[in-house]
Amino acid sequence: MSTASESNGGPAASATNSTVPNSAVTTGPIEGSAKAYVPTESGLQVPVRRISLTNGEHFDVYDTSGPYTDSDTVIDVHSGLYPLRRGWASEHRTQLEWARDGVTTPEMEFIAVREGVSAEFVRSEVASGRAVIPVSRRHPESEPMIIGKNFLVKVNANLGNSAVTSSVEEEVEKMVWATRWGADTIMDLSTGKRIHETREWILRNSPVPVGTVPIYQALEKVDGEPEKLTWELYRDTIIEQCEQGVDYMTVHAGVLLRYVPLTAQRVTGIVSRGGSIMAAWCLAHHRESFLYTHFSELCEILRSYDVTFSLGDGLRPGSIADANDRAQFAELETLGELTHIARDLGVQVMIEGPGHVPMDKIKENVELEEELCGEAPFYTLGPLATDIAPAYDHITSAIGAAEIARHGTAMLCYVTPKEHLGLPNRDDVKTGVITYKIAAHSADLAKGHPRAQERDDALSKARFEFRWIDQFNLSLDPDTARAYHDETLPAEPAKTA
Amino acid sequence: MSTASESNGGPAASATNSTVPNSAVTTGPIEGSAKAYVPTESGLQVPVRRISLTNGEHFDVYDTSGPYTDSDTVIDVHSGLYPLRRGWASEHRTQLEWARDGVTTPEMEFIAVREGVSAEFVRSEVASGRAVIPVSRRHPESEPMIIGKNFLVKVNANLGNSAVTSSVEEEVEKMVWATRWGADTIMDLSTGKRIHETREWILRNSPVPVGTVPIYQALEKVDGEPEKLTWELYRDTIIEQCEQGVDYMTVHAGVLLRYVPLTAQRVTGIVSRGGSIMAAWCLAHHRESFLYTHFSELCEILRSYDVTFSLGDGLRPGSIADANDRAQFAELETLGELTHIARDLGVQVMIEGPGHVPMDKIKENVELEEELCGEAPFYTLGPLATDIAPAYDHITSAIGAAEIARHGTAMLCYVTPKEHLGLPNRDDVKTGVITYKIAAHSADLAKGHPRAQERDDALSKARFEFRWIDQFNLSLDPDTARAYHDETLPAEPAKTA
Repeated sequence: MSTASESNGGPAASATNSTVPNSAVTTGPIEGSAKAYVPTESGLQVPVRRISLTNGEHFDVYDTSGPYTDSDTVIDVHSGLYPLRRGWASEHRTQLEWARDGVTTPEMEFIAVREGVSAEFVRSEVASGRAVIPVSRRHPESEPMIIGKNFLVKVNANLGNSAVTSSVEEEVEKMVWATRWGADTIMDLSTGKRIHETREWILRNSPVPVGTVPIYQALEKVDGEPEKLTWELYRDTIIEQCEQGVDYMTVHAGVLLRYVPLTAQRVTGIVSRGGSIMAAWCLAHHRESFLYTHFSELCEILRSYDVTFSLGDGLRPGSIADANDRAQFAELETLGELTHIARDLGVQVMIEGPGHVPMDKIKENVELEEELCGEAPFYTLGPLATDIAPAYDHITSAIGAAEIARHGTAMLCYVTPKEHLGLPNRDDVKTGVITYKIAAHSADLAKGHPRAQERDDALSKARFEFRWIDQFNLSLDPDTARAYHDETLPAEPAKTA
Repeated sequence: MSTASESNGGPAASATNSTVPNSAVTTGPIEGSAKAYVPTESGLQVPVRRISLTNGEHFDVYDTSGPYTDSDTVIDVHSGLYPLRRGWASEHRTQLEWARDGVTTPEMEFIAVREGVSAEFVRSEVASGRAVIPVSRRHPESEPMIIGKNFLVKVNANLGNSAVTSSVEEEVEKMVWATRWGADTIMDLSTGKRIHETREWILRNSPVPVGTVPIYQALEKVDGEPEKLTWELYRDTIIEQCEQGVDYMTVHAGVLLRYVPLTAQRVTGIVSRGGSIMAAWCLAHHRESFLYTHFSELCEILRSYDVTFSLGDGLRPGSIADANDRAQFAELETLGELTHIARDLGVQVMIEGPGHVPMDKIKENVELEEELCGEAPFYTLGPLATDIAPAYDHITSAIGAAEIARHGTAMLCYVTPKEHLGLPNRDDVKTGVITYKIAAHSADLAKGHPRAQERDDALSKARFEFRWIDQFNLSLDPDTARAYHDETLPAEPAKTA
């Protein structure tokens, strides 16, 4: 537990002044399944969700839900999760540096079993920069995972309270809920006064990597006035978050002063919050941003915690009309330049991508990103394939997400039905995660991932044999499949006939 | 009104023995819009949905909803809709025959304005067989529309009661409801004793073309035993449905005896109901099906009403594992052979397609269909890009649908969240239609349809200018967009700020 958390009423604080009751989080396995562990060569325990079938067989699926779905584990959100990875890395080196030196870390060994590949393959992909393992040394509670185009496509879920609409308690439950349904990482985009405390609760209880956008907290410290931001204030915020255990950070270091005018003729200007903040700073000071001019110092800080860069696309298109324009691709060139600097300094890097892109312009995004950024893992928000369906943007974006992922995007940031309209509630989070698991899996199938189709085959076989219960349990959301079936044919025999 | 309908308690019967109260159907425009009519050169009135914007402008969108959304029209489901097209075609010729003879029909003139192209372009696309105009002479209530890859991608909604779960009344409302949200055609897949009556109510009240699968009704007549089916019984069923005014019919004439064994090793065998029926008949009689052997006679019947063939894919894959296999493509070859026979006899033809196909195998389906079937319009069910998400198959299939449509599929058959699980209710119908409008529009954008992006631009501009009400009203589903926004920020000023 970090000192910072103890002074901020996080989980390390005593139960008496806690704000999060245990009862607030969902525990227990998804119906029809149970937690199991598969040992690695050296005895590490890799979790899987084991689905029992009515024909006596079972089917194991990749499991992101952590100890919450293990019936044998007692959950205490005030203590946080068991620090699984404590002591795994004794030296201050990054996974990238280990990999380059030919060392297979315990994280790589763990991931190899999770992904069904060799540990050496994991190491070589990390060494080349084509994959990242976003596991901060200060977040030992998380289970190692990898993001790279030669692995299963991953899904991120954005969470984050605001003073107006939700509590710390709700955000911790949303994190548990999102990972229950398959979120591979979560981003805490909280704003407001309790930003540090919320993050502490989430980090200590999250079984998956946690990402943030530090500029949001930095802005809180200057009362929301971008021009008052300074390198020193930003740096201190970064260190605070590194100390807490954030695994990856979005940094909009590619928004250069000369790119800002390129957005003037756009239909939707600059829609990225981080991008707007940095553009406002650049214009106010008429200088390149401190994120760009101090980038090497930033690298030094992230390197010492093994925090991964997620280089943000501050100039991403916010509409179909603005897709693949000069502003967007100019920033991407700068992200490419920064990628190589970061890698040279031993820091892991991924690259964020759009946004809103019509289907015919999606592939170009991946190709250009790979070319400019040395195949650094691409991490995209959708993209939405059309602008005309607010309230259904999980779907407009799942279409784009599946398309961009099959061409090589390594992680997809989910979009919920409330995108553009409001903050997602618990149901929206689940809908967003399931929708994005569909997009990711569709891409895994299209890419010919060796084990992806096994689940489709198992479910389709169950369907063809009228093993309804198996069909439900093998699906991404057994609860809803069962409920929809029962709506029309509620009788129990109808499920086994 | 056909004789058949009068003897079966359809809308022509007096109100006293009617089963459908007027109050059961939804009327009035979608909020923020009003029906308007754009005149063609010769004075035909083409409906549009006119959205009024808060900046004083307006935006017209393609409108499938018929008179139900016209505040000036009195709806009486017992009389049926006004027979708009009565007398438009005085001779018994098909749109294909007119087009080949260089004649621009009123239907083509109407469609030209609807699609924003020249009437001559419409005629030439129909003449080549690349597009069809499914408007039976016996269904004069429908507004002309076109299905072809060089036009806007269309969406079909399947409806249909079953004795167990829904009434005639509910099905008429589902038809009105589906077209309200954008269904370009509907298919009536009703089963049970009231199949003729249900269809009559739907036809007399439908502003869009209605499709059926006649083998379903034929099977009812032989107590559900496929081997008892005969050509004569099927022929009489076809004539009955042609007389009523069905606009297009699914005919599974490509299921040949020698193809049936090709499905033996599949994970999911034959999943098409029509395909299963015809395979069972072929095996029971050890002969080619009467649909294949009497195909020319079928053509003669359809030609005389200008009913369009939708040649069914009885051997479509029902799982990712079975996609693009020999059974599927063998049947497609036969559908190609039949397409040319039908066209030679003056009958319009479209081709049905799968089903379940991973993203990397989708494009091949379109290319092969175009090659084998002389670019006849392709009409696909999704396809689902993965099998693992029952309860979300509107989404798994929207991913595949957008992909197949951007490569040239002309019409998409929607899939609702209840696919594989139960019968769709009213909410499911709306979700299915909106989801498929998203897929279709995403494809229109990717294909560079000249007017498609105008709506995205108008909505994005409204979004950027914080014109919330315009953003809602320009969206595919203003009601839900508004509701989601109000959930977080209910205050009225938040929508205009």
